[in-house]
Amino acid sequence: RAQETNSKTTKSQLTEVRPNLSEPTQVSVGIYLVDFDKFDEQNESFKLDGYLFLTWKDQRLAFQANQNNLGSKTYKPGEIWLPDVHFANVELKREKAYTQIKVNPDGTVNYKERFKGTFKSEMDVRRFPFDRQKLKLVLESPLNDTEQVIFNVDKSKTGRSSEAFLTGWKIGEQNAVAEITKSEVENIEENQYIYEIDLFRDSDSYFWNIIVPLLLIIAVSFTVFWSRSFESNTVISFSSLLSAIAFNIVIAEELPKVAYLTFINGFILISYLVICLAIIQIVIKHYLNAEKKEDISMKMDRICRWLFPTSFGISNLILILIFLI
Amino acid sequence: RAQETNSKTTKSQLTEVRPNLSEPTQVSVGIYLVDFDKFDEQNESFKLDGYLFLTWKDQRLAFQANQNNLGSKTYKPGEIWLPDVHFANVELKREKAYTQIKVNPDGTVNYKERFKGTFKSEMDVRRFPFDRQKLKLVLESPLNDTEQVIFNVDKSKTGRSSEAFLTGWKIGEQNAVAEITKSEVENIEENQYIYEIDLFRDSDSYFWNIIVPLLLIIAVSFTVFWSRSFESNTVISFSSLLSAIAFNIVIAEELPKVAYLTFINGFILISYLVICLAIIQIVIKHYLNAEKKEDISMKMDRICRWLFPTSFGISNLILILIFLI
Amino acid sequence: RAQETNSKTTKSQLTEVRPNLSEPTQVSVGIYLVDFDKFDEQNESFKLDGYLFLTWKDQRLAFQANQNNLGSKTYKPGEIWLPDVHFANVELKREKAYTQIKVNPDGTVNYKERFKGTFKSEMDVRRFPFDRQKLKLVLESPLNDTEQVIFNVDKSKTGRSSEAFLTGWKIGEQNAVAEITKSEVENIEENQYIYEIDLFRDSDSYFWNIIVPLLLIIAVSFTVFWSRSFESNTVISFSSLLSAIAFNIVIAEELPKVAYLTFINGFILISYLVICLAIIQIVIKHYLNAEKKEDISMKMDRICRWLFPTSFGISNLILILIFLI
Amino acid sequence: RAQETNSKTTKSQLTEVRPNLSEPTQVSVGIYLVDFDKFDEQNESFKLDGYLFLTWKDQRLAFQANQNNLGSKTYKPGEIWLPDVHFANVELKREKAYTQIKVNPDGTVNYKERFKGTFKSEMDVRRFPFDRQKLKLVLESPLNDTEQVIFNVDKSKTGRSSEAFLTGWKIGEQNAVAEITKSEVENIEENQYIYEIDLFRDSDSYFWNIIVPLLLIIAVSFTVFWSRSFESNTVISFSSLLSAIAFNIVIAEELPKVAYLTFINGFILISYLVICLAIIQIVIKHYLNAEKKEDISMKMDRICRWLFPTSFGISNLILILIFLI
Amino acid sequence: RAQETNSKTTKSQLTEVRPNLSEPTQVSVGIYLVDFDKFDEQNESFKLDGYLFLTWKDQRLAFQANQNNLGSKTYKPGEIWLPDVHFANVELKREKAYTQIKVNPDGTVNYKERFKGTFKSEMDVRRFPFDRQKLKLVLESPLNDTEQVIFNVDKSKTGRSSEAFLTGWKIGEQNAVAEITKSEVENIEENQYIYEIDLFRDSDSYFWNIIVPLLLIIAVSFTVFWSRSFESNTVISFSSLLSAIAFNIVIAEELPKVAYLTFINGFILISYLVICLAIIQIVIKHYLNAEKKEDISMKMDRICRWLFPTSFGISNLILILIFLI
Repeated sequence: RAQETNSKTTKSQLTEVRPNLSEPTQVSVGIYLVDFDKFDEQNESFKLDGYLFLTWKDQRLAFQANQNNLGSKTYKPGEIWLPDVHFANVELKREKAYTQIKVNPDGTVNYKERFKGTFKSEMDVRRFPFDRQKLKLVLESPLNDTEQVIFNVDKSKTGRSSEAFLTGWKIGEQNAVAEITKSEVENIEENQYIYEIDLFRDSDSYFWNIIVPLLLIIAVSFTVFWSRSFESNTVISFSSLLSAIAFNIVIAEELPKVAYLTFINGFILISYLVICLAIIQIVIKHYLNAEKKEDISMKMDRICRWLFPTSFGISNLILILIFLI
Repeated sequence: RAQETNSKTTKSQLTEVRPNLSEPTQVSVGIYLVDFDKFDEQNESFKLDGYLFLTWKDQRLAFQANQNNLGSKTYKPGEIWLPDVHFANVELKREKAYTQIKVNPDGTVNYKERFKGTFKSEMDVRRFPFDRQKLKLVLESPLNDTEQVIFNVDKSKTGRSSEAFLTGWKIGEQNAVAEITKSEVENIEENQYIYEIDLFRDSDSYFWNIIVPLLLIIAVSFTVFWSRSFESNTVISFSSLLSAIAFNIVIAEELPKVAYLTFINGFILISYLVICLAIIQIVIKHYLNAEKKEDISMKMDRICRWLFPTSFGISNLILILIFLI
Repeated sequence: RAQETNSKTTKSQLTEVRPNLSEPTQVSVGIYLVDFDKFDEQNESFKLDGYLFLTWKDQRLAFQANQNNLGSKTYKPGEIWLPDVHFANVELKREKAYTQIKVNPDGTVNYKERFKGTFKSEMDVRRFPFDRQKLKLVLESPLNDTEQVIFNVDKSKTGRSSEAFLTGWKIGEQNAVAEITKSEVENIEENQYIYEIDLFRDSDSYFWNIIVPLLLIIAVSFTVFWSRSFESNTVISFSSLLSAIAFNIVIAEELPKVAYLTFINGFILISYLVICLAIIQIVIKHYLNAEKKEDISMKMDRICRWLFPTSFGISNLILILIFLI
Repeated sequence: RAQETNSKTTKSQLTEVRPNLSEPTQVSVGIYLVDFDKFDEQNESFKLDGYLFLTWKDQRLAFQANQNNLGSKTYKPGEIWLPDVHFANVELKREKAYTQIKVNPDGTVNYKERFKGTFKSEMDVRRFPFDRQKLKLVLESPLNDTEQVIFNVDKSKTGRSSEAFLTGWKIGEQNAVAEITKSEVENIEENQYIYEIDLFRDSDSYFWNIIVPLLLIIAVSFTVFWSRSFESNTVISFSSLLSAIAFNIVIAEELPKVAYLTFINGFILISYLVICLAIIQIVIKHYLNAEKKEDISMKMDRICRWLFPTSFGISNLILILIFLI
Repeated sequence: RAQETNSKTTKSQLTEVRPNLSEPTQVSVGIYLVDFDKFDEQNESFKLDGYLFLTWKDQRLAFQANQNNLGSKTYKPGEIWLPDVHFANVELKREKAYTQIKVNPDGTVNYKERFKGTFKSEMDVRRFPFDRQKLKLVLESPLNDTEQVIFNVDKSKTGRSSEAFLTGWKIGEQNAVAEITKSEVENIEENQYIYEIDLFRDSDSYFWNIIVPLLLIIAVSFTVFWSRSFESNTVISFSSLLSAIAFNIVIAEELPKVAYLTFINGFILISYLVICLAIIQIVIKHYLNAEKKEDISMKMDRICRWLFPTSFGISNLILILIFLI
């Protein structure tokens, strides 16, 4: 009975007590991205599916390799001590599809976990649709005790699947660092492993589906400078304005729902403005004609034929300077 | 065996019985906001991610510090007595990502919890898009027994992360108070800790995306006062009306879906009204011309050229007075 | 060992057997509404957050009050017998945030539960936006055995929080009754506690956001009766029609998504009809003019100037009579 | 100890072994529909809330009735053997709100369960909005062994609540059959209980909200055959086309989102076509007038005045023949 | 007591140790598709409901058939060893509705499971609405150890229900292969069973609901080449442009929300372009007429009457060549 108690204690110690208490445990961390599930610019979050690899040494688990155990022993969570890690920027908790723990004869523990979670990461879509984003996964140890667990980057297991895709984005390079930072919340030091991945928005479809049609509408609105019929001109310019607004309805779903101005908002605003100015020009022309000042109105037309396209181009250049450079 | 039973009782007492029953337990409460997840004006709720800190003294857990326990002992929920607190305004329950309990040698218990929940808080968006909101988290003890647990504000652990953001809002100051109030439901006194945080809506994008385009449409609709062609005037004013309505479709998604009038509703209504009045003006002008009273119609135009913009401006000033001041 | 078994039996009896089997247990029921979370006219359901109070007498739990137990003992669910109640019209099950059971020295059990659930309740929005709804919570005992549990209304604990709100509605009076009805499903009698609460829709915002703009559009479409230009009249009346339809797009989200006609549907249909009739009138005028019957067309205009507004008003009065009275 | 083991075995046999192994157990099945929660034409599924009644005889549970047990004994799931039934067309699993098992003195077991589930059922909305649907619940025994459980229809417990409603549908008759079919998946026979309920779409609101406004738009587009002004005619016919398209936006949400043509799609397509043909007619008229063939254009108008409405009517009759008969 | 321990060990061995450790276990895999639940082009995922069949031999479970066990014994998960398989491309985990394990007298284990899951599968909708997709289910063993479990295709149990449907798609042939591949993540070999099913989009409704109405709008916009009235021409061509845009709003919901160009995007873009070119043509015509070059403008009209339709046709042919062939 004493032995039983003893064995129980041993077992409890094996699962609850860190190996080699006299020095911190070195844990090699690897994150391997399998796929993105969702990308939400409004809430600045993304859903990710991946593998988490942890490797450390627990001398107590070392064993003599033989034919039966095939060079490694398999354990279940709860049977041995595991470093208690969690993502700092995950929404609530990561979900685990499955975990797998293998111990080599020398006591090296290989922990592999397939996880999924919604992660919060600051995103800036001001340059939309020409923006890039840097997504972050921050792994922490909730014990907040640098003396106990030290993260190292396991380069061989940090990466991403070649089949990972995020519709509308080109996936760039991933990068991982391990660092010790001061906690904002409490007066303690924290151990962090940060996995970063670059995303480049695929702007082609936005160019053809949003910018080109708007340019076509602007172009046809400029035909008023070649027409001398006031009735037709009002139809042309107001229909252009209506077309631009109606087209804005079409594309409303594709624009990011953020509460700050983006490049594309600026472009649409300039489009509205230039069409409204063309409307004011045709009324002035009409007014001049009514006042028998046809020569001035003709001159005005000739100037506007190049003034409007030029101004529109310059405004957009300024917009590009402000937002994109 | 007797001893075993005894130890069991002791353990049960440790977890179920409050320390020092003769006087209420003083619990220092701290809430630290990590991030906002969602903000719903229609249901007047918000999702929040944060830390809850509770600190109290349990003399029974005091111990002799030595090299092994590193100055503090760690417990799991269920192993010791915990004050039973909950949020009064949370939807159902808060979700706990993880909890961490550390006891100092003097018996001070430090409870830390990462939580997430959807909280209900009265919101008034009548001033939209120039509104500010005061969000509340109300922590209560369900035992409703002020003799048992007294909340204190733990200022050092009340705060918010510098990385917390809520897209479309500037986050202001947080504030926390502990108070004893009379329950509305039952004839008992309740112990409350209230954490408040101010939010200021970022109105810039609403100004440029909603108000400026509508002002442009109003402006071009006023060109009818300089034109004498009835055919063109009908096109101008009706296209302006259609543009305003179509533009309203574009922005419908950005307006708060509340069932009361907001500042922006008033602004849109005035826009519709002013365009409709311009339509009536052009028909009267046309009618006068048909009746050979061109001089009156000319005079009318001259008056309207300043009357309409002025009236529009004054109406909006009144609107601002009613809604914003 | 025998004693142990005995004590076990007692405990099991305490939790599974109703007190005083010879007569039905009188259970006082109180429901206290904390807040509404959602209101869905399409599925005729609402989400509600509240307290459920049950009070009954269990002589077996009576005890001698002393200083230690503070006048009441606290139990957990599963430790004593509880009446097995559920909501008949809840979707699946109510969720319980927490429960609290206190027993007074005389054996009176006070059960308090914070619950949340989605409830189905017949709603009729035919009078939208001038409708009122009566929401129901029906509590039943699944044992369906009136001999066992009798519900009484506990007036002191039936109520609603002054902070309860449902955006877009004024909350009226609540009412509770307990009754015994015959089950529709099986040939048995059922014991029901019904909590009802009145809701009055806040129709102000619908009036200003939907009805006033439509009236403006109708008004400007009537200007065709003062204009003799066929070209302008086609523009006026068709733009009015388009504006009404476009405006219908703006408000589509605010209208209840039910598959029967509501007052507002009727109002919109009459608006379309009156504009289409105005279109037919202008073509008849044009045809008469082409046939050199200008005097008849002039007369027609003079008649329509009062006929159209009057007919529109009368149609709406009939609509009000049908739907609202 | 032997006895204990024996009792254990008995208990385990009671719960795991079917009564009277020598012949199949006759199970009377009744399904009672309480309410519909959701109806999804796109995924061809519906959510349903109801009671499942199972009745069979287990001689082993027969007992001597006396005053204490009130004529029936109550059991919990897991305490006795239950036929293992499930719905073949449910999404994943049904959810159980509560279950209730009563055994009569003769051993008759009455199993009652309140369940909810999302069921897949083939739907054909080609005749929309004049369609009817037959919804199916298919109950199977996963043991797939007709020798073990035989389903019978329990007519007295098959039905639906008079308060069941599905917004937008009239609920017709329900019907239940029990049959033995060959499994598609494996080479075995299956025992099925099929509950069917008829639904008839309430087409009134679709008639008034969709078809009547479209007919009004078609009607006003036909006024071009009475007008000789090309300018006005272009406005009339194109505004009609735009109105029809804009109206299509209004109603887009109400149409079923299926990927095949429905009656209403055909009706909208014919509407577009007839307006486009009218546009072509006015341009031909204009061209003839320019070529000084006014008499032909006049004749054309006179023919079109009855040709267009007639063709439109005939097209719709053909559509009705194809889709509805 | 020793025997008890022994039996326990045996049981644990039965559930945790693979039968016949000396050679890999041959597992026959069959997947039988019951139904699709959802199909998401944006996230490139689909929800699927099906049966998973696994068959292998476990000599330890062989038994003597007699009348009682009906030729097979039934086990529950946890009672015997099961190959640990999972889907590599499922979101998190598959959900299991129920599982059924039958062992034949010779030790052949028949595992049957009804499962549901959301699967990620690369989709290419560039050819929309004339695209086809190949959906994949990839089953793996998480032990990643080809020495342990070898997958074989069980043709007799690989298939799909004749009642499986996916609204908007024709379901083609399914196919299954078992293969050994090198893992991307770790330096190990993996055992995969891949089930593929072809889907062909039902493009009829897209043809009639999207392409035909757009062709009608293009057709009526070409009437400007037969009209010499500038005022009418501006109305015709701009209304066509507005109609095309408004129609785009109607169909926006039906188009796949992907961030790359599809065939239908190209078709819509060409439609906009051709209408805008027609607008430019009418302004040039008007300008020529104002410059008294009516003969050139007449000639231009005659050329455009066949040039525009031809160019439109050729552009679409090129589009078809790029996207569809």
